Amino acid sequence: MKKYQLMAPGPTPVPSEVLLAMAQPMIHHRTPEYDALFAEVRAGLKTLVQTEQEVLPLACSGTGAMEAAVVNTLSAGDRVAVVRAGTFGERWIEICRAFRLDVLELAAPFGQTVPAERVAAALRAEPRLRAVLVQHSETSTGVLHDVRGYAAVTRASDALLIVDAVSSLGIADLPMDAWGVDVVVAGSQKGLMLPPGLGFCALGDRAWARTRTSTLPKYYLNLTEERRCVVKNEAHFTPAVSIVVGLRQVLRMLEREGLPNVFRRHDRLARATRAGAEALGLALFARATPSPAVTAVVAPPGVDSERIVAAYAAAHNITIAGGQGEMKGTLFRLGHMGYAAELDVIVALAALEQVLADLGQPVDFGAGVRAAQKVFAEKA
Amino acid sequence: MKKYQLMAPGPTPVPSEVLLAMAQPMIHHRTPEYDALFAEVRAGLKTLVQTEQEVLPLACSGTGAMEAAVVNTLSAGDRVAVVRAGTFGERWIEICRAFRLDVLELAAPFGQTVPAERVAAALRAEPRLRAVLVQHSETSTGVLHDVRGYAAVTRASDALLIVDAVSSLGIADLPMDAWGVDVVVAGSQKGLMLPPGLGFCALGDRAWARTRTSTLPKYYLNLTEERRCVVKNEAHFTPAVSIVVGLRQVLRMLEREGLPNVFRRHDRLARATRAGAEALGLALFARATPSPAVTAVVAPPGVDSERIVAAYAAAHNITIAGGQGEMKGTLFRLGHMGYAAELDVIVALAALEQVLADLGQPVDFGAGVRAAQKVFAEKA
Repeated sequence: MKKYQLMAPGPTPVPSEVLLAMAQPMIHHRTPEYDALFAEVRAGLKTLVQTEQEVLPLACSGTGAMEAAVVNTLSAGDRVAVVRAGTFGERWIEICRAFRLDVLELAAPFGQTVPAERVAAALRAEPRLRAVLVQHSETSTGVLHDVRGYAAVTRASDALLIVDAVSSLGIADLPMDAWGVDVVVAGSQKGLMLPPGLGFCALGDRAWARTRTSTLPKYYLNLTEERRCVVKNEAHFTPAVSIVVGLRQVLRMLEREGLPNVFRRHDRLARATRAGAEALGLALFARATPSPAVTAVVAPPGVDSERIVAAYAAAHNITIAGGQGEMKGTLFRLGHMGYAAELDVIVALAALEQVLADLGQPVDFGAGVRAAQKVFAEKA
Repeated sequence: MKKYQLMAPGPTPVPSEVLLAMAQPMIHHRTPEYDALFAEVRAGLKTLVQTEQEVLPLACSGTGAMEAAVVNTLSAGDRVAVVRAGTFGERWIEICRAFRLDVLELAAPFGQTVPAERVAAALRAEPRLRAVLVQHSETSTGVLHDVRGYAAVTRASDALLIVDAVSSLGIADLPMDAWGVDVVVAGSQKGLMLPPGLGFCALGDRAWARTRTSTLPKYYLNLTEERRCVVKNEAHFTPAVSIVVGLRQVLRMLEREGLPNVFRRHDRLARATRAGAEALGLALFARATPSPAVTAVVAPPGVDSERIVAAYAAAHNITIAGGQGEMKGTLFRLGHMGYAAELDVIVALAALEQVLADLGQPVDFGAGVRAAQKVFAEKA
């Protein structure tokens, strides 16, 4: 018997108590029960996103919420800048181009980042830029971009800062209001420990003002209409009821742990994972601030990283992820977000040692595990 | 103790075996497990929609799938006809107008239908009509529109027939290919006995041809890209994994019962509900072919139908639905779709008798129940 373990960078494991909450009989979304549930969820989401604004849940995946951010705040022909340093940066570009925006690519080699100063320079050079679109955590490379820095420079311009926080909400600190982020986009299946199917958008005042002039067509993802309903504890269209039920449970768990502790936990898991991989002689893919959500590791020379992913599955019944797009074959990714604890990292690293040995690589058994344990032994 | 019963026209109750299937540990969507699961789901959906085409699941609610049908097959400025005889007909109009289509309203008083001949006349009068958009079952009024007739007349024209089957799929017979329906749209939370959060679109050859010239902007709901992934047992974006897991279970249940039996069951439940309401002296709202999914009943003179809805909840812990939009206060709706059986109808009618009596209406206790039982006693 091999226990199934989900260690990919999303979807992430769903805690049993959340699974069981979602397995309760279906309720209707226009009832006092749902009203009370949704009121609690609204308050919890504001705490989580660290904002006074409404956080709007949408029945869609993270990409749908990304699209919602674009179509509600921008207009065809608008010039926008996109930080492109991974697959999800490319997704912003694809979305913007699909809606006929004029994209300035601020590109960095995958694994690296774009410094805030480069964004500031772009804003100075092109004052008509209407938005800067970025990832907080770029899931494909394991890099955390400098959202705080981007916010400082966009606040000083007319451009909105639109942040994909799909793999950072509830993982890395992102105080939306304090930093002055204009739009935060998230999804249910990463730090929120839920099944995929729920996206989130939170808009600041500057972004809400922009919705009044946005000419892009929208209906299902119309956030103005959604907010009109949400403030009454309703949803514009039938919500993903079961996932919202699970969300209440998750928000209670996160509140119990305390948001600063949640961020600290993810930071420790990420540091331990990196230390373990490096102790095994492997290189990390991130050449900039690493993400606390996911660690991208470069496969040893001569080894296709897809073989490592396959060996994790075949020998250990563990799902990890390979590289996306141009990174396929060169790196593998270990997720440590959401319902993830110290011993999960130990399991991932012990399995990695065995996988490498099985693939004929020289391995000092226990070296990766030991390096992680040393991180965990540090005073929190 | 009062057992909670969900008898609204969606979301509908989810069978325990489906809830438990969805409560299994989360799996990743790029694994052999999901591949096998999705292959089975794809085949089952084709059987259910009675088509050779791919039925594309989307992580969105039914309205998102309606929007997908529009934005993939039409272009801004296109002239389209919409059968408007209820709230969901109005929704088609809202979606079309949001995407700047030019809408010809084929309106009928709510509770009535638009005969196929009127659609044929519109197509003759305006040969440049690019599509006819209709509901199969108009959930707000409890009317079943003549999709077969509409299909016959649209096939003879250049217009596509786009059918919202959200509250008819797995409830009323809708052989997509045999009738020549161009687009079928559905959702998870009605006949499919699942939580809301999954939409479906199936396109026929004429509709796929139209996608190649459609100029409306789209990304998240791009069906061409979705199909490219689905034929490889993948999803373009992270799918609503848990609901897809539940869907496999539902498709097995429906296959076991047999599609003709599923349709017969719904027809019997609907006839029994109507017979029961009429035996209690209540008028049915539908003045055309009634829907097998939902029965809209007119409240007795002088009684606000919202009081009936509230009394069902307060006295019996049963969720039914009131009237939507202009019908609010005048009618209430009993759902009998999906995971619904004969004795559920008996419960709904017995509770109705007690509710009416509590509201001071004269009631012949048992008369509604008896009328339903007589329907059930007929040879199947």
